[in-house]
Amino acid sequence: MNGVIGVDIGGTKMAAARVSSGGSLAGDIHAVASSGQSEEGLVDALLGLLNAEIRRNGPPQAVGLGCAGTVHRKSGVVVVSPNLPLRGTSLVSLVEDALDLPTFLDNDANVAALAEARVGAGIGAQHMLMVTLGTGVGGGLVLDGEVYRGASGAAGEVGHMVVKAGGEECRCGSKGCLEAYASGTALERIAGNLVREGEDGPMAALLQRGELDGLSVGRLAKEGDPGALRAVREVGWWLGVGLAGMANLLEPEIIVIGGGLVELGDILLDPAREVVQEEALSPVREGVDVRCARLGADAGILGAGLMAWEESGMSPEV
Amino acid sequence: MNGVIGVDIGGTKMAAARVSSGGSLAGDIHAVASSGQSEEGLVDALLGLLNAEIRRNGPPQAVGLGCAGTVHRKSGVVVVSPNLPLRGTSLVSLVEDALDLPTFLDNDANVAALAEARVGAGIGAQHMLMVTLGTGVGGGLVLDGEVYRGASGAAGEVGHMVVKAGGEECRCGSKGCLEAYASGTALERIAGNLVREGEDGPMAALLQRGELDGLSVGRLAKEGDPGALRAVREVGWWLGVGLAGMANLLEPEIIVIGGGLVELGDILLDPAREVVQEEALSPVREGVDVRCARLGADAGILGAGLMAWEESGMSPEV
Repeated sequence: MNGVIGVDIGGTKMAAARVSSGGSLAGDIHAVASSGQSEEGLVDALLGLLNAEIRRNGPPQAVGLGCAGTVHRKSGVVVVSPNLPLRGTSLVSLVEDALDLPTFLDNDANVAALAEARVGAGIGAQHMLMVTLGTGVGGGLVLDGEVYRGASGAAGEVGHMVVKAGGEECRCGSKGCLEAYASGTALERIAGNLVREGEDGPMAALLQRGELDGLSVGRLAKEGDPGALRAVREVGWWLGVGLAGMANLLEPEIIVIGGGLVELGDILLDPAREVVQEEALSPVREGVDVRCARLGADAGILGAGLMAWEESGMSPEV
Repeated sequence: MNGVIGVDIGGTKMAAARVSSGGSLAGDIHAVASSGQSEEGLVDALLGLLNAEIRRNGPPQAVGLGCAGTVHRKSGVVVVSPNLPLRGTSLVSLVEDALDLPTFLDNDANVAALAEARVGAGIGAQHMLMVTLGTGVGGGLVLDGEVYRGASGAAGEVGHMVVKAGGEECRCGSKGCLEAYASGTALERIAGNLVREGEDGPMAALLQRGELDGLSVGRLAKEGDPGALRAVREVGWWLGVGLAGMANLLEPEIIVIGGGLVELGDILLDPAREVVQEEALSPVREGVDVRCARLGADAGILGAGLMAWEESGMSPEV
């Protein structure tokens, strides 16, 4: 087996697999823990993961790394990562020196967007936004068919566009960001507010037990609980406000929604779609489709692999 | 004289001039009225303007048209224009058939952004946003060195990103758009509110005489009137909120502010810059510079000309 190895380096684990030129998994995924490590330990674990994959399936043609954090692409350096002990770490050099294989690096949101654009929910779109709804809100942009990275690689922070100036405090220190209204954290806050305003269904019981969070509210919404549905729809409405603005700015054909919250499907996305149809301008609104991501947790590995295919000059067959 | 002819087709007049390969005016600007015409009359006036320019300076190598309105680039059609009687008008074919010259069309905001990027305030930036503050708020994007147009050419509607969900009504029918807070119209509203809240300086007198508008408030602010300065700073603050969000999404090196309001200069832009420094994330905020446009009213002609140079395959020397 040849192909490339794609690695998804996240805050809790690193996962690697062989990725075919068609952008699909060409072997099993193997993972190791990434938390609780020193910088050196983390690099050793990454090299161990890659060496084990090479022992199993032979040397690949290239390696693609998608890493949580701020990445300086030209130098192949992870500048800083919120959940990993990487700070100015020359990840590309370290892997190339150890394995003598062409190695490519980008952040996890960008490679996930690339994967969805090439082999996922964004197939066929020249202009695609990916918005990832988890504890926070992240994203990646594919514009004119290529990942758009901005001046230094920090573009795509869709969660930190202000949708309500002076509104809720955001983790980033600013107020009223999309992340403060359309994340798992926001779902928890909105559900809590509904209970405090008199909603007395199962959400009230969860709040009393200290178990009200985005996950539990989502579960209740899927079971049809009216209070939880109301909370999810409110998050969907805010999501739509953010998406409409991004759509007016970038006129994408497809907006792909990923991350944990997307398991709510149309319960969450229909209110967002309604707002986009109301608030985006013509012809933007007629041309944009808001969809669920297709690749789930595999998007990172597949995107890292596809990046390696594309950037090594070996065109993938997608 | 050879070169190309750049034409700026606006709601009140059409202006044309020869544009050199260096992106500067290579002859005088000649203009004719564009208002009060039928579609046929407008096209005749455009052809008359071009023929007169050809009689003066000889045939050009190409023609570039920047037109207010929604443009379908591939077909060379003006789909619709808010202030011109053009609707599904094949402007490129009409000019090419009449003059037998390669002709290129884009909307006015995009060509103005191109001109600022190539020979104006955006020189050196690979990623530049242009935001035009007039009665409304328009804009254009230059990403990865090229004008970014989105799926059908409608991208760049920077004025219709929501900065305060549920806020002030916007001309577009939505609520809380940047245009409703950072335009000449918004300056008038904010100044009026200050007077109604007790501000009793010269703005109160203007309001009483029915002469309080964006222009008069701007004039007072430049004279140092505290009330008008307060109104301008509030508009600047809102502008900053919008710019910070766009910066987080696109990580530009330069944001160019054009349009009538930019005559206020740092009175308007300093509050915006402060908000960008507070609300944009690192490293975006360290890398972005908010500047006044340099080309003023010439941006449309120069940009239309530069587009013709670039798209005809004759590289301009900028």
